[in-house]
Amino acid sequence: MANDNQSITPRHQDHAQWYQDVIVAADLAENSPVRGCMVIKPYGYAIWEKMVAVLDELIKKQGAANAYFPLFIPMSFIEKEAEHIKGFSPELAVVTHGGGKQLESPLVVRPTSETIIYDSFSRWIKSYRDLPLLINQWANVVRWEMRPRLFLRTTEFLWQEGHTAHASAKEARKYTLQILKKVYFPFAEKYLGVHVLTGEKSESEKFAGALATFCIESLMQDGKSLQMGTSHDLSDHFAKSFGVQYLNEEGKLTYAFNTSWGVSTRLIGGLILSHSDDKGLVLPPALAPHQVVVVPIATDAKDPVMAAAKKLAAGFPKTYGAKFDDRMNLRAGEKFYDWEKKGVPVRIELGPKDLAANSCVLVRRDTGEKNSVALADVKTIVKDMLADIQKTLYDRTAKRVAEQTVVVDTWEQFTAAVEKGYARAFWCERPECEAQIKEKTKATSRLLALDAPIENVVAPVCIACGQKVKRKKRWYFAKAY
Amino acid sequence: MANDNQSITPRHQDHAQWYQDVIVAADLAENSPVRGCMVIKPYGYAIWEKMVAVLDELIKKQGAANAYFPLFIPMSFIEKEAEHIKGFSPELAVVTHGGGKQLESPLVVRPTSETIIYDSFSRWIKSYRDLPLLINQWANVVRWEMRPRLFLRTTEFLWQEGHTAHASAKEARKYTLQILKKVYFPFAEKYLGVHVLTGEKSESEKFAGALATFCIESLMQDGKSLQMGTSHDLSDHFAKSFGVQYLNEEGKLTYAFNTSWGVSTRLIGGLILSHSDDKGLVLPPALAPHQVVVVPIATDAKDPVMAAAKKLAAGFPKTYGAKFDDRMNLRAGEKFYDWEKKGVPVRIELGPKDLAANSCVLVRRDTGEKNSVALADVKTIVKDMLADIQKTLYDRTAKRVAEQTVVVDTWEQFTAAVEKGYARAFWCERPECEAQIKEKTKATSRLLALDAPIENVVAPVCIACGQKVKRKKRWYFAKAY
Repeated sequence: MANDNQSITPRHQDHAQWYQDVIVAADLAENSPVRGCMVIKPYGYAIWEKMVAVLDELIKKQGAANAYFPLFIPMSFIEKEAEHIKGFSPELAVVTHGGGKQLESPLVVRPTSETIIYDSFSRWIKSYRDLPLLINQWANVVRWEMRPRLFLRTTEFLWQEGHTAHASAKEARKYTLQILKKVYFPFAEKYLGVHVLTGEKSESEKFAGALATFCIESLMQDGKSLQMGTSHDLSDHFAKSFGVQYLNEEGKLTYAFNTSWGVSTRLIGGLILSHSDDKGLVLPPALAPHQVVVVPIATDAKDPVMAAAKKLAAGFPKTYGAKFDDRMNLRAGEKFYDWEKKGVPVRIELGPKDLAANSCVLVRRDTGEKNSVALADVKTIVKDMLADIQKTLYDRTAKRVAEQTVVVDTWEQFTAAVEKGYARAFWCERPECEAQIKEKTKATSRLLALDAPIENVVAPVCIACGQKVKRKKRWYFAKAY
Repeated sequence: MANDNQSITPRHQDHAQWYQDVIVAADLAENSPVRGCMVIKPYGYAIWEKMVAVLDELIKKQGAANAYFPLFIPMSFIEKEAEHIKGFSPELAVVTHGGGKQLESPLVVRPTSETIIYDSFSRWIKSYRDLPLLINQWANVVRWEMRPRLFLRTTEFLWQEGHTAHASAKEARKYTLQILKKVYFPFAEKYLGVHVLTGEKSESEKFAGALATFCIESLMQDGKSLQMGTSHDLSDHFAKSFGVQYLNEEGKLTYAFNTSWGVSTRLIGGLILSHSDDKGLVLPPALAPHQVVVVPIATDAKDPVMAAAKKLAAGFPKTYGAKFDDRMNLRAGEKFYDWEKKGVPVRIELGPKDLAANSCVLVRRDTGEKNSVALADVKTIVKDMLADIQKTLYDRTAKRVAEQTVVVDTWEQFTAAVEKGYARAFWCERPECEAQIKEKTKATSRLLALDAPIENVVAPVCIACGQKVKRKKRWYFAKAY
């Protein structure tokens, strides 16, 4: 595919344009002729495939099995849970015609699958022996988007959605948090290489129909927060709407308790916003389709450098996806530039002089450092370098959040803090108050951290309205994607 | 999940009901409240996951990369290729409302993605250096279905669809056949364990918009043929409709040549129809989520048999997905029955007497054979047994097609042959003639085999109308799913 010599707008100049430029330069995705829908190009999709493989394994380790439910949901299902329809109705795509005829009842293209899945659960679950029922689905969903941005907000996106049923409220809450802690948190920190906060959402930010929503959320380079994954405790709200009941050990018919949880192609947006720089994409090795690229410096396909470079690339473990760039229509410099834009963690340059000296040049994408090393040592050095790049990228995000989070006790401190990152503040937790904060500052409550300490303050009051607070814990506020 | 003691209608009694019963008994899928759409349950989906893993690897070996294109297609795109819209228009699902408003132009839920993908190709392809462009997509598609049957014909189904662009008609034809021979044929024969014919479709059976359609097709137990996968040579038909052009080496703007190819969840239907019996599902080991199940015969969780059975299951290679059935609420006999219905290739029974004798009982699902073997030999014996089951299942399908294919030269022979399987006959290749054959016998042309010999007959005539034939080769006819 043609990949033009794309220049990238610097971050400080226009952050939104920089984001768009990085995607184009790395050939990750493009807008489609259908407004709000994106085309995920092969390189972008290869990153998604890496994510899916890791997440799928982590999810299966929590006991969930994959299944598949219909794309279409009867409108009447969506309307059964009052909060749910209120939340989703402005975003629905509706099928009114099928097989050449107008449908008697319109069908909704799934915006999420609680309703159609719990309808199945109502048939699958009969006794306490059928619980817990732990299901996951990899699917596309549609939520009509007025201000689309590639990966971050698209009308159609790809995701996994987990749906479970448990015998008690306590078990449901436990599993909600288990997914957050054992799947989403380690995925973000170990694979995405991104520091994340884990916590609970406010009333106005929680999922439509949930008792409580928990999330992972991370601070991007521009000081805005990105919600990267959510896990919902649905209590028995949907079970009551869809008749998900079981006979308990005493033979009594009882409603089940549900959880649902999901992450999406938005994670690719988070990956870009977290690590990339003015030269283009920067990939954490754990999710890079090619962790290493070997670029020969040769103008003739028969140059011994070509064979040596090919052999070098083939010598790495298969999991590296090492790429030998044998394109003869590009100069070596153009290839360097190409792989830099694509964020390949380690580039190896091999020219005639290097080969004669039994050495090659290693270039790290994260720091730009360049070193000549002996060919005999390359494998060991690259292995360590990949681990160090993964760690370095993570450390940068941890440093960022540490530096750009401020404990605030006055409104002035608050407004200053949310210009740069997180403000940690006492808050009354009232939706009306949150709406006012948003109007004044564009910031919203992001989460109440799971590990938020109880503060040693006598009578803390809300940072915005001065009313008494519910709990002596500080919330995180920020502007958000 | 509750899996009731489901009885299975014998094949000879009611083949269609038997098929439905096998699916229910093995807990593979169910009809959803949305007519024509199915729910693929965890066990059915686990089989699909095995299929996807194998196919994805085979496809990538042919050089194709995965990508993802929008679910929605503008109606105007579908209408651009005249044959295409003619073929698909009765099957379309149409979105007329999005985000709370009526859309200015309706969107079609993709029935297949040629149009939206070649629109992208028209931007991606500029020069001969961009060719061949080899793309694959794993996705859901929707074709409104009036007579749905689980897996075989559903309004929504899961599939892969490959889409490529080549510099010449010759290269496109070559790749069309490469996919058939290097992906679909070996997948069917080595993994599904099903004998398949490979050949070309007639004018009336080919894909809407294609120059030629090639397929794999297999004879089911009831003597009907099932199309299992297709690969289309699209010539430059779509390239001309969507402006897919490239500058060739002489700098001249030239239309590209496309191919498209797909297999779907229909393969699961084929798997069931090929191998299963009156006791339920029979799985080829290569696609079985659990190749082996170990069932302890014990009523107490502390019985030493339990620990020994657990250890036995854990001792098999991870790829076997060996299952240790430790459910204490079922009797051993109930478990045997359960795994039989689910088609697990090898069942291992371990009771107190077996354990005392350092032996266990192996039961083959395909033949029902039961043998006591020494625990020390189990691994080797099971390994050989799995290979033998895979081979036995395949051999049965090869024997079936050999026995139920008849070379016919009279109409009487023809009508008798298509009652039991394939008739191989000379045919004029006229659509009107095919329509008449179908009306009289319910049989249609299935394919002209790739390896069909030129017959040593002076002036062969059409089996149905007596007109002169185009080629001295016999077509396969059969009733079809």
